[in-house]
Amino acid sequence: MSEQMYTTKEAMLYSQRVAQLSKALWKAVEKDWQQWIKPYDLNINEHHILWISYHLKGASISDVAKFGVMHVSTAFNFSKKLEERGYLTFSKRNDDKRNTYVELTTDGVELILKMNENYHQTQHSILEGSLALKDLYGRFPDFLDVMAVIRNIYGEDFIDIFERSFQNFNYTLEDKTDINA
Amino acid sequence: MSEQMYTTKEAMLYSQRVAQLSKALWKAVEKDWQQWIKPYDLNINEHHILWISYHLKGASISDVAKFGVMHVSTAFNFSKKLEERGYLTFSKRNDDKRNTYVELTTDGVELILKMNENYHQTQHSILEGSLALKDLYGRFPDFLDVMAVIRNIYGEDFIDIFERSFQNFNYTLEDKTDINA
Repeated sequence: MSEQMYTTKEAMLYSQRVAQLSKALWKAVEKDWQQWIKPYDLNINEHHILWISYHLKGASISDVAKFGVMHVSTAFNFSKKLEERGYLTFSKRNDDKRNTYVELTTDGVELILKMNENYHQTQHSILEGSLALKDLYGRFPDFLDVMAVIRNIYGEDFIDIFERSFQNFNYTLEDKTDINA
Repeated sequence: MSEQMYTTKEAMLYSQRVAQLSKALWKAVEKDWQQWIKPYDLNINEHHILWISYHLKGASISDVAKFGVMHVSTAFNFSKKLEERGYLTFSKRNDDKRNTYVELTTDGVELILKMNENYHQTQHSILEGSLALKDLYGRFPDFLDVMAVIRNIYGEDFIDIFERSFQNFNYTLEDKTDINA
């Protein structure tokens, strides 16, 4: 039914508009992210794996892959490298023998906390580019339409993990870095 | 002034939220894009260069790089490959001797038009993921907050080229593919 409700032209204009915007947005995010993690000799996937397993308090490789939007083999291979460097460990869980889980070691947790502390040592163009919106609306933008599209593409699971990790992130930052920049 | 108006915590939560969302959005866009262009033996950068020079009716390499969010050397090297395949030509302009311009050949134009015609032969998850919003609001989402952030990061130039290329895209699609999907 819905498929009848747009013209081919409208669909092409819309999806190529999203393509251009999301490429530009991602390239800015990627640059910010790379600058932030550079001193720690990590690539984006490696940091993402650490971030996810920290905030989910341990995660299955398939959850890491799903939420990190990477192939399962990528998630597994980079996790192996992080294990070799002593930042995480692999384990099985009694209630779920089929999946392999990763969990941060003390060194891994320390690394994540140190990186959070040094977050504002590098430039974050996304942040600077959002200040005018913050000034105007009194809060940072919500990107609600992006959220809705992602929910439809990746499913409720993805959004659940997303919200769960940000709840934990919010909690771990409490009373620690809550100062004026 | 503005920099004082947010806490470190708020800033980290916001920018990492944007990081996760934009990675997920871009990975979906990238997959759609790759499936669409696969039969034509092009990579995303190559198609992007053709798309930009088509819609700007010729473009300088630096405009291609800017609007395509790629390094100038990437824009140049892939343009060279497209020239070898007969899809575009390099030239200088009398009013601008310093920049190198690229322009599509007849073969290049034919390729772009053929690709547009076959657009709906492949899956576009972004489109499908947006239909619920279209049903609800009567139109595809505008991503206005993404636009605003990108405007602040990349500048007015970027938005100008963006609007110019979509005006032309809109015009070239007129009365051609305006049928119900």
